[in-house]
Amino acid sequence: MGGYKNRILRVDLTQGVFSEESLSPELIHDYIGGRGFGTRLLYDDLKAGTDPLSPGNEIIYMAGPLAGTNAQSFARWKIYFKSPLTGTIFKSSGGGHFASELKFAGFDGVAIKGSAPKPVYIWIHDGKYELRDATYLWGLDCDDTHLLIREELGDPRIRLVCVGPAGERGVKVAGVFSDRRAAARGGGGAVMGMKNLKAIAVRSSSREIEIADPEGFRKAVKEQVDSFRANPSYEARREVGTRHTEFTNLLGMFPTHNFQDGTLPDWEKIDSPEWNNLTYQHTACFGCILRCGAITKTNKGKYAGSWTEGPEYETIWGFSGPMGVVDSGLIIAADNLCDRLGLDTISVASSIGFAYELFERGIINREDTGGMELAYGSDQYVLELVRQIAYREGFGNVLAEGTVGAARQIGKGAIDYAIQVKGLELPAYDPRGAKAHGLNLLTSNNGADHCSGYAPQEMFGLPIPYKADRFATENKGTLAKWNQDKQAMMETGTLCVFATNMMSPEMYAKLISTATGVKDFADPAYLWKVGERIFNLERMFNVREGFNKKDDVFPKRITTETMPHGTAAGQVFETDILLPDYYKARGWDDNGIPTREKLGELGLDFTLK
Amino acid sequence: MGGYKNRILRVDLTQGVFSEESLSPELIHDYIGGRGFGTRLLYDDLKAGTDPLSPGNEIIYMAGPLAGTNAQSFARWKIYFKSPLTGTIFKSSGGGHFASELKFAGFDGVAIKGSAPKPVYIWIHDGKYELRDATYLWGLDCDDTHLLIREELGDPRIRLVCVGPAGERGVKVAGVFSDRRAAARGGGGAVMGMKNLKAIAVRSSSREIEIADPEGFRKAVKEQVDSFRANPSYEARREVGTRHTEFTNLLGMFPTHNFQDGTLPDWEKIDSPEWNNLTYQHTACFGCILRCGAITKTNKGKYAGSWTEGPEYETIWGFSGPMGVVDSGLIIAADNLCDRLGLDTISVASSIGFAYELFERGIINREDTGGMELAYGSDQYVLELVRQIAYREGFGNVLAEGTVGAARQIGKGAIDYAIQVKGLELPAYDPRGAKAHGLNLLTSNNGADHCSGYAPQEMFGLPIPYKADRFATENKGTLAKWNQDKQAMMETGTLCVFATNMMSPEMYAKLISTATGVKDFADPAYLWKVGERIFNLERMFNVREGFNKKDDVFPKRITTETMPHGTAAGQVFETDILLPDYYKARGWDDNGIPTREKLGELGLDFTLK
Repeated sequence: MGGYKNRILRVDLTQGVFSEESLSPELIHDYIGGRGFGTRLLYDDLKAGTDPLSPGNEIIYMAGPLAGTNAQSFARWKIYFKSPLTGTIFKSSGGGHFASELKFAGFDGVAIKGSAPKPVYIWIHDGKYELRDATYLWGLDCDDTHLLIREELGDPRIRLVCVGPAGERGVKVAGVFSDRRAAARGGGGAVMGMKNLKAIAVRSSSREIEIADPEGFRKAVKEQVDSFRANPSYEARREVGTRHTEFTNLLGMFPTHNFQDGTLPDWEKIDSPEWNNLTYQHTACFGCILRCGAITKTNKGKYAGSWTEGPEYETIWGFSGPMGVVDSGLIIAADNLCDRLGLDTISVASSIGFAYELFERGIINREDTGGMELAYGSDQYVLELVRQIAYREGFGNVLAEGTVGAARQIGKGAIDYAIQVKGLELPAYDPRGAKAHGLNLLTSNNGADHCSGYAPQEMFGLPIPYKADRFATENKGTLAKWNQDKQAMMETGTLCVFATNMMSPEMYAKLISTATGVKDFADPAYLWKVGERIFNLERMFNVREGFNKKDDVFPKRITTETMPHGTAAGQVFETDILLPDYYKARGWDDNGIPTREKLGELGLDFTLK
Repeated sequence: MGGYKNRILRVDLTQGVFSEESLSPELIHDYIGGRGFGTRLLYDDLKAGTDPLSPGNEIIYMAGPLAGTNAQSFARWKIYFKSPLTGTIFKSSGGGHFASELKFAGFDGVAIKGSAPKPVYIWIHDGKYELRDATYLWGLDCDDTHLLIREELGDPRIRLVCVGPAGERGVKVAGVFSDRRAAARGGGGAVMGMKNLKAIAVRSSSREIEIADPEGFRKAVKEQVDSFRANPSYEARREVGTRHTEFTNLLGMFPTHNFQDGTLPDWEKIDSPEWNNLTYQHTACFGCILRCGAITKTNKGKYAGSWTEGPEYETIWGFSGPMGVVDSGLIIAADNLCDRLGLDTISVASSIGFAYELFERGIINREDTGGMELAYGSDQYVLELVRQIAYREGFGNVLAEGTVGAARQIGKGAIDYAIQVKGLELPAYDPRGAKAHGLNLLTSNNGADHCSGYAPQEMFGLPIPYKADRFATENKGTLAKWNQDKQAMMETGTLCVFATNMMSPEMYAKLISTATGVKDFADPAYLWKVGERIFNLERMFNVREGFNKKDDVFPKRITTETMPHGTAAGQVFETDILLPDYYKARGWDDNGIPTREKLGELGLDFTLK
């Protein structure tokens, strides 16, 4: 197994006890690492029906086998937990330097259960670990938490993941943050907060990762780097990152006014030229030549002086389309605020856009909002709403539950305007404009998660030769499955979703097999099987929780209201055609349950017990 | 000269040109370093009548010869400039790690003139230096400036000094900040801001400081450490820092309601036991066993979740006495805000307390304040006023000029309530309660600066055997001179003011002579002479600007209104007796001008040209 240590640090916060676990060769063979381990460990450890915000829930922080190596774009750390927002298994992913530092310090993952009697943080250094008092950190925002932990431990090079005020309050759209990079979706911050766990800090004096076949790995990395550099997306990714709005507006699927339309007037003002103007530094995660990050800042308008690391595409959309406001300054200021308070920009922005529509329709009024007039085109209360959500104050305490939870409290048919699947708010793609992409949002095991099976074939004609007619319904089940299984495969590594298009299974096979020394990993067909295995095991987690076809459902706007304007005008999402096709492609039964045969084929018989 | 390099980096921001200067052995002999160099260079470089906020002003950042060594409490960096608040020469001092890093990087000081055409920062690393674009940093607060420069340059161990939004706007009570430690007084932040200079960042890969006589220095340091540890103040300084209010309240000289009284009701609630409860970490500057700093945080009341590094005594007073509010949470929140926005807590708090009195007297009203009702006992608008001062918004734009500038705008006799000397707001000591201490505030070359000649003899009976009757007027001129000259001597090192009581001239002579190899420095009598030389040269700088006896004046409250309550009840400050006595002790004429004889004796004849 070479240098692949597969060492998991387990922490029981209720007891304040640590233990170490080395994963078995069988588990490594079947699941490789990263998302594979996170999924299997969570499946094994959790009982069905566990309250996500109770001590019984578990949260697992995983680096992948290639983190900390000079293979490119493998810096992701992922968290795995049962989501308080969706009730499903959840994986959320952040970048930066936490995963590599955790590996350097001797661990592939940290699995946390229980709940500490008072606020604590975990300090992992050079293979050692301890629980420390976090009373003085409680209430601090994410930036200050980084600052003070580094001050306390006397090393500014410490890396950490933490929660802000939102996570501490169990806000269901709270994420986990590491140097302004976030595993934001699904409420992992709330899970951490309810465990009284403020942060995990990591530092290693070593920078070594053992590699099973150093010469073979060196060649594979060179091939990867050459291939990335030759990729047509390479320069754009380096210069623009994901800071653009053109493609989805031209495709007529940039969700506007809570998905009432698919083109945002004046979107050009927040497209890549604007972001290039506002970009002052490019930033990169550990070992990534794509360096898609940026420090942006605005010097004009009412948000002059605001800065952020980012925004990414989703956040640019989040603080424009949902409110019908086009102001790069607002986007920057809101992104910064969400990063500091520890909030998922997508779900927060969606929830605010949802409130705007309820207000427009008279379902809520100023009495409900504490005097705030929410009108499309107005940014007046956006930052205040973000703040209220984080601190569970006023109307923010309603939106802190996400759109479904808020709709439950509001009643009066509000649920129809909650644009989500399984409780997770839709990201910045209207499913009516790209059907395989939509199918992924409908069937992802995390709810409407664009990072589980993005369909670049429909939106960019990538990867060649898979260009697909985005409106067609034929074969979209197969395409969605292909994208989902590939993503699951790549997240064993753990490859960044932004690099998935650039990475072939063949190239990944070379990297992962030479790094780990596991022979079967050199076979792309085997890797596909692992990807499928992971995806199906996630599904079985959800089946165990009672999920099935009834939960693979879009709000009626997506399936019954035709897109009014733009290049996707006239489109709906044809669930009745697309979903059965997908189930068939997956080898699942009509109720969306993996068949006994499929499970046997994937070595998942144990889920039938 | 051993390892004492005396290397000054000169920067002309108008031209964008750097040059290096090695100071002459004569200058080193006469001025030693630190405050000596800062004063002499500024005297030589500036023309009389220079507008402090014009490119013609200079700002000099000095480390001392003992910074970066293991001599204790020499981590101070000082800035020297003509003050926009006072029109005098000004020295302001900060701690932390900037001075040591600057020395490691090969420089004793940085002298800056001119004004950059657009925002810049200076990057000094391993003896090299460059100007870098700071457009993207403009508008950022001090914390974020640290964060982004470290991110841009890729090294979290970089140390820096910077200004916040207040300095950028030429706010006359803006300071210069380094990791939440500040050279806050006198408007150095405004000087830096008007030069379009956002920051100076420093990093060295070496940690070496050459010492002329390593063995002698080692012995001297051991003696210093032993002596500090044996000092009766040692444990208190380590545990409480300066976080106490008992001593001045018991002395009846804790300024309350803009110096209308000397005892604050309920001061016990913000005395050291409260701060000990709120202290979560002790912090120290480079090479200081006193570690008087602290991270404090409140978990209760309306400011729950607020934290700061500090507060020190002056800030504890600043956000209590002036407003008549007793709330540790407010103090913490306001200290944090001032640190982030780049403001001097003393002058900001004094200016707010001044506004409270004007409001109480009807000199200003809600029309002037933009609707804010300023009433003693209310903290309602304190943070908002701080913010407005930093951003020059609303009524804050008036207070941003300091009390004298504000009084000029307000008129109506407001100037009588501006409690300041030469435009610098008085710190947390009512001169009526301690006459030598008051004399220093009256005659310090920076205006009412408690760090230029603190009188511990009157307040603590230290250093033995100089215990003095604090109300007596006899011999207070001599005592004030003694304290001022000793402070100037120690600031050649540059010793921290908090350690001055613990350090005898004899011990300092051992440290500074073995470190530099300059023989005369081994003679305490010579060091006293250097201290006196520096103080008189500062005075001559001010004389050249037109200052004389007419400017050594307290507001009439201090000299004509008797203290109403407490242990100092009935006292006034007897300027008519004390000031002539001081001039006499100094060898100055009746108008407060150093005589030709005195200047000759000190080698300052050149000031007569």
